[in-house]
Amino acid sequence: MFNSQDAHYMARALELAKRGRFTVSPNPAVGCVIVRHDKIVGEGYHRQAGGPHAEVFALRQAGAAAKGATAYVTLEPCSHYGRTPPCAQALIDAGVSRVVAASVDANPQVSGRGLAMLREAGIMAEAGLMAAESDAINRGFMHRMRTGLPFVTVKLASSLDGRTALANGQSKWITGSAARRDVQRHRALSCAILSGADTVLVDNASLNVRWAELPESVQASYDEVRTADNAGELASLQVSQPLRQPLRVIIDTRNRLTPHLALFSVPGPILLLRGQVTGGFNANVEECVLPCTPLGQLDLPELMAELGRRQINHLWVEAGARLGGALLEATLIDELVLYQAPKLMGSTARGLFDIPERVAMSQITRLEWQDCRQVGEDIKLTARVKN
Amino acid sequence: MFNSQDAHYMARALELAKRGRFTVSPNPAVGCVIVRHDKIVGEGYHRQAGGPHAEVFALRQAGAAAKGATAYVTLEPCSHYGRTPPCAQALIDAGVSRVVAASVDANPQVSGRGLAMLREAGIMAEAGLMAAESDAINRGFMHRMRTGLPFVTVKLASSLDGRTALANGQSKWITGSAARRDVQRHRALSCAILSGADTVLVDNASLNVRWAELPESVQASYDEVRTADNAGELASLQVSQPLRQPLRVIIDTRNRLTPHLALFSVPGPILLLRGQVTGGFNANVEECVLPCTPLGQLDLPELMAELGRRQINHLWVEAGARLGGALLEATLIDELVLYQAPKLMGSTARGLFDIPERVAMSQITRLEWQDCRQVGEDIKLTARVKN
Repeated sequence: MFNSQDAHYMARALELAKRGRFTVSPNPAVGCVIVRHDKIVGEGYHRQAGGPHAEVFALRQAGAAAKGATAYVTLEPCSHYGRTPPCAQALIDAGVSRVVAASVDANPQVSGRGLAMLREAGIMAEAGLMAAESDAINRGFMHRMRTGLPFVTVKLASSLDGRTALANGQSKWITGSAARRDVQRHRALSCAILSGADTVLVDNASLNVRWAELPESVQASYDEVRTADNAGELASLQVSQPLRQPLRVIIDTRNRLTPHLALFSVPGPILLLRGQVTGGFNANVEECVLPCTPLGQLDLPELMAELGRRQINHLWVEAGARLGGALLEATLIDELVLYQAPKLMGSTARGLFDIPERVAMSQITRLEWQDCRQVGEDIKLTARVKN
Repeated sequence: MFNSQDAHYMARALELAKRGRFTVSPNPAVGCVIVRHDKIVGEGYHRQAGGPHAEVFALRQAGAAAKGATAYVTLEPCSHYGRTPPCAQALIDAGVSRVVAASVDANPQVSGRGLAMLREAGIMAEAGLMAAESDAINRGFMHRMRTGLPFVTVKLASSLDGRTALANGQSKWITGSAARRDVQRHRALSCAILSGADTVLVDNASLNVRWAELPESVQASYDEVRTADNAGELASLQVSQPLRQPLRVIIDTRNRLTPHLALFSVPGPILLLRGQVTGGFNANVEECVLPCTPLGQLDLPELMAELGRRQINHLWVEAGARLGGALLEATLIDELVLYQAPKLMGSTARGLFDIPERVAMSQITRLEWQDCRQVGEDIKLTARVKN
């Protein structure tokens, strides 16, 4: 059973967890608060895969005060030796008397084991407090643990009448600068960005995260992670880069991309899905040949499985109507983010999703609204796809 | 100069004004509050053209207490003999010492005259307090007074990808029942509804206001107007109908509509814009032949001028992509209301506006967001057109 004090401290732990969201991939974002005699004696959050877990930061800050304390942690403490020792053991060793977790680990192979280890050591261990909030912060990670696939968000930008470009291809700019900054934030939150050769060629797009275009709040998150010296652990963090660049995944089955494009001139890893491997790219570019369908299209379910294997939790897709339509047809889209500009382009302009014609209303794709807000001069609509 | 007490009473007068919005056409909605020694002694609002004005109701309720009082009125009191004697004179006769108006009359021929008449009688008369709110309540009336034309709102319903129907024409139902009830409210607020023969034929649409489908708040407004006995004036109101039906204006230049359609079987006036007058319709139907363009299309600016002459303040358009596109091309749309369903129909489905192809982004129509909200399962976006 949880009381209102529990909720208060868990809310703080969730706040801490969120600070790691931009750097923690492919790990989940986790926050921890240690409370003794109704006073916070230690806090921490997970910053980077390979670095200390949230519990370690919090326990080090608490020191001897952890004895008899309650630990609030947004994800069930780990029970296995990975790149770091198990946090459940660290909590036991520190002598905490109670552990409250928000989510249990979504990985069915470890789910509940951390709690069990704590209980075996005589610690009162409960989970489920504000689990929805914690799951939302790590929905990509949770989704991949459950399904083996990334959580896929398709980003679209259109006029109010659902058009992405004029018939002649012109589209700069449909949406305003605030929407484009918001896209930068989504890119920074994602593990990988998927796009097609068309998009890269038409706009000579870099598809990277650009410091100067990030909202200030995101810049502040990066700064905090880079400069925080929580319990003297800074040296172990090795957050030396100003940004974590998501993996850029580009479908180029017709081998149309050449090394001189802007895409290849900015830092960050690139996975190039090609018809054949040609070489000639920088060391940050991996060429890869994946199976195709009998019609010569990339096998998209196979692509998603491969990205899952590569620990991509959250995939952000910026693509045209053809790739978007193919993903929709393959029921691979989990979520849509549509920036709608206060403009009308008319029925001759290009549409959002190229999919085969539906002949009955019962066949159309259903969505579920998640959010609707103004972003600068545009409206941002977020919806989940009911696959 | 206005103080916070003035704002308080004017807010009440605006609240009263709104009660008349569903029945007052083609007059503006007006509310009046009479205050003496910081106490409301009389209230009223205008219910129906030909019935007493707001000031008359309020003065009758106030009786002798009006002497030395302040009258708050949302629109400058009238100074001319119309169907009722001038309210400025009534305020003078009652002995009020101060009049505070929100809007001045938008009709340039009478604007300021009511205030002038009051000042000549030694009454302190000021205008402009919360004028934006009052103008918003009567934006159709204000627009017609300024331009001679109705304020034109085009209603659209589409999927998230901007599609109104499948390629084969199927569209029932894109939006949910809450959106359809909201449309009933908009119809009830409008002076006339414009549509085309296609819409009438495809859906056998009635395009009327239906009591059972109105939101409860609108039903309550009608009930209030019908049953209120403010200062014993009920008998003079003659609000006997349960509803005021807006004029239905149907473009049927190819004379395709026949008298057996549902449109003609429900009460309320109809203006049928035909290629030629054939007769054979009920008495509530007026056939009318308006000028056409050289291409045989109805001259839409001429139609709007005609509707202005017929005192249509606010025109609500429910039409397909062709009429919508033609109105857009003619820069006759003031506002769009788009109900967006959480659905995707794909690029083969029908678009929102059939307009000639744009070849540069600088040519596309710009809008200004007014509102964005969830209505049942759909999102309702309201935008003004920057013509």
